[in-house]
Amino acid sequence: MKIVDYQESPTHKYDSEAAKGVTGRVVIGKEDQADNFCMRVFTVEPGGFTLRHTHDWEHEVFVHSGKGQVYRKGEWRDIQSGTVVFIPGNEEHQIKNRGEEDFVFVCLIPSGAPEI
Amino acid sequence: MKIVDYQESPTHKYDSEAAKGVTGRVVIGKEDQADNFCMRVFTVEPGGFTLRHTHDWEHEVFVHSGKGQVYRKGEWRDIQSGTVVFIPGNEEHQIKNRGEEDFVFVCLIPSGAPEI
Repeated sequence: MKIVDYQESPTHKYDSEAAKGVTGRVVIGKEDQADNFCMRVFTVEPGGFTLRHTHDWEHEVFVHSGKGQVYRKGEWRDIQSGTVVFIPGNEEHQIKNRGEEDFVFVCLIPSGAPEI
Repeated sequence: MKIVDYQESPTHKYDSEAAKGVTGRVVIGKEDQADNFCMRVFTVEPGGFTLRHTHDWEHEVFVHSGKGQVYRKGEWRDIQSGTVVFIPGNEEHQIKNRGEEDFVFVCLIPSGAPEI
């Protein structure tokens, strides 16, 4: 059994015109012999956003803290601490922070997809 | 894309000598065409605990809020908001609330395991 605070996991930073102010962490993955699916935690700074993109695997998202929005079929929908989002494969998506504090969400993907 | 607050999902209550003060919710599962893994959210009341058990599938856990403990190889380890726990298949485990507020955690399982 692995027990760790998510903030102890190594960080991957995204800061460009396409994805701004985002820190990603793989917290449970192949290194842990998690063979079926992978847990990552993302922190989006105020004003930040993830890449808008599409891929053939799904996301299962749980919002841990903060206030954000998710892009869904041409519009932005508010999401916040306690919101669950299921993004099926091949559906375009993007997440941004709409608050004054960090926006933190858990995002799981099936094995086979890139872990980060 | 499904967007929902976890508290809107139907509840399953556990209240016996073996599992006390626990409310479980399937928030993303087969009904959503989530074919690879399933997201549940559990709320454990102060004084409450989940079943101590073992099964051949894994858990990927993220603690959303509160203070708890997880049973691991004969001892109790403190966990709290922001803790990640990976419980491999066939490892005995149990989770309890050690605080004065609800203890809320996200727990994912692979497809094929019972959803709740």
